[in-house]
Amino acid sequence: MNYTAELTQLIKAVKPADTEAIAKARERLDNLAKPPGSLGVLEDIAARLAGITGQVLNTINKKAVIILSADNGVVEEGVASAPQSVTYAQTLNFMRGVTGVAVLAKQANASLYVVDVGINAEISHPNIINRKVRMGTGNMRKGPAMTREEAMKAILVGAEVAEMAIADGCDLLGAGEMGIGNTSTSSALLMALTGCSADLAVGRGAGLDEAAFAHKKRVVTEAVALNNPDRSDPVDLLAKVGGLDIAAMTGVYLAAAKNRVPVVIDGFISAVAAVLAFRLAPDSLSYMFGSHLSEEPGYKLAMEQLGLAAMLNMRMRLGEGSGCPLGFSIIEFACAMMNHMATFEEASIDSEYLDQIDEISFDQTVNP
Amino acid sequence: MNYTAELTQLIKAVKPADTEAIAKARERLDNLAKPPGSLGVLEDIAARLAGITGQVLNTINKKAVIILSADNGVVEEGVASAPQSVTYAQTLNFMRGVTGVAVLAKQANASLYVVDVGINAEISHPNIINRKVRMGTGNMRKGPAMTREEAMKAILVGAEVAEMAIADGCDLLGAGEMGIGNTSTSSALLMALTGCSADLAVGRGAGLDEAAFAHKKRVVTEAVALNNPDRSDPVDLLAKVGGLDIAAMTGVYLAAAKNRVPVVIDGFISAVAAVLAFRLAPDSLSYMFGSHLSEEPGYKLAMEQLGLAAMLNMRMRLGEGSGCPLGFSIIEFACAMMNHMATFEEASIDSEYLDQIDEISFDQTVNP
Repeated sequence: MNYTAELTQLIKAVKPADTEAIAKARERLDNLAKPPGSLGVLEDIAARLAGITGQVLNTINKKAVIILSADNGVVEEGVASAPQSVTYAQTLNFMRGVTGVAVLAKQANASLYVVDVGINAEISHPNIINRKVRMGTGNMRKGPAMTREEAMKAILVGAEVAEMAIADGCDLLGAGEMGIGNTSTSSALLMALTGCSADLAVGRGAGLDEAAFAHKKRVVTEAVALNNPDRSDPVDLLAKVGGLDIAAMTGVYLAAAKNRVPVVIDGFISAVAAVLAFRLAPDSLSYMFGSHLSEEPGYKLAMEQLGLAAMLNMRMRLGEGSGCPLGFSIIEFACAMMNHMATFEEASIDSEYLDQIDEISFDQTVNP
Repeated sequence: MNYTAELTQLIKAVKPADTEAIAKARERLDNLAKPPGSLGVLEDIAARLAGITGQVLNTINKKAVIILSADNGVVEEGVASAPQSVTYAQTLNFMRGVTGVAVLAKQANASLYVVDVGINAEISHPNIINRKVRMGTGNMRKGPAMTREEAMKAILVGAEVAEMAIADGCDLLGAGEMGIGNTSTSSALLMALTGCSADLAVGRGAGLDEAAFAHKKRVVTEAVALNNPDRSDPVDLLAKVGGLDIAAMTGVYLAAAKNRVPVVIDGFISAVAAVLAFRLAPDSLSYMFGSHLSEEPGYKLAMEQLGLAAMLNMRMRLGEGSGCPLGFSIIEFACAMMNHMATFEEASIDSEYLDQIDEISFDQTVNP
């Protein structure tokens, strides 16, 4: 099967959320012993999870962040504060468990699937999933970042690895990335998608000074103008001004949706990938959850396209998927609420209950 | 020893954060392999923990939410949407593990210390810590809620239970409450503390309609005017327009600070108690952490008094300390970051390392 057919099939397999299950979940939520709506976003999460799985009660058994690593040719324009070799080095550091996302994932008891979708170096480790589409993209300021075939191939790599994680039992996913230069490609995509200016879409990335920041805006603006991608065609956008990492993240969202598995968005880059997945398959939105309000200026704009809100305001801007483990823990709190809180009926204190008061126990309360 | 002397001693025992440890922590944070500052609030938390414990690296071993239950006489004015008996019923439900804070605390592996500091009913359960100061407060619209002695006694109850939890090994605390009518007392305290109007300080609590909401504003305004508490004297404020629950929470913050243990603020009511602790012992602020942005309007005003920010925006307004377990998990993520991320030096990939690449492993990465 060719890539176009495979991608079309993936997109068609994304189905809407189960609105009946959402309604049933809302009914239960309103019956839990608390002022209606007083657990806010936790309630929304529980209802949305019901729509995803079709079940009112949900438990998260296994979590993973899928990290897509790839290089971006545009770094030769001097748009990034770190050298390209950092993509390679940090990808190896995921294997050592010492990067931001690695330590946060471990804290949340989440696994990492680390994928080489186009690092510009040979890299070999038994736990790095080698799906290199090419040795980094071309420089989008001089021409398209990649071919249409390559963009589709990268989307399908992300989808394949998401399906691998789901086959391994993961029922909550996050999408992360490592790719020096990928705030530039994300900004270019956002500008092409929305028609907004570089002032709204471009940030300082890992930390550019004033002059380098102005230069980055120019480079991104010129790349969009030169390539003039078709904003109604996410694959064309990805091929011309995107990256292999972002394309693969798009595939992660699509495959999560296809398999009715919730998926957490990290920061700016993963939010842009989520917008692309949403444009390819609008129903995929029902499977996505925001996590933290990224400091990158384009993040808000991207999330507005999705109509999703961040739950955390941590002033984080690391990337790697580092916000996903935090989002996982909030989603698990929502499940605990839904599964274990009493309904008003169960919470009412009747006389029969008072006779047995000494026998009632909850292992978390302390007997002083 | 009398209450005044005991309280004075508690206040004097609160010492400033260790600024040297904070500086050392900031140095390490800047050396971790990430763009400087890119983990935002997680970095701030790690630095503040160093100031609290005096150690650069910190681990949370045991967590607890201390829940102060008490009744408020002002409910006879019809300011609450739930009957007073709910204080009693929900306090028993903490024992069953079925309330909001109970299920969220269990999810975070945190214990509950449940304290009867003034429920307006006899209540007996082996795990309810009986420190009843009186059978609920008086109606503040008709006179002071309690005597100055009672307010001090309640503060010291909170401090005692916090010290009990710390003696049990808890190194991260949260303050929660159960007391129908306590958004009214919190609003009265905030108005008296800041001189702000009822429009800024009074919210709908568990869910009042328009007429009841207007009535609540009038009652709270009248209570403040009638009692005319001394805004420079937190004990006078608590005695005249406060509550036993809020007084005891104030004591929790003070004892946490005295023992150099971090303590998490939940929503509006616990934020007001935190302001009172801060006024009694300004250095106690260094030991407090915000958790979620409560929907109650007065929350923001109270947190502005502290200069603290919420980390989560969950549209929650349940109380009980329900935001604390979520805050705990974020603080634990900050510890994981600080303890396990590599420094730039450790993260650099040298040739010796590349020879051993197959041997490097991290138990969270998946071998596909």
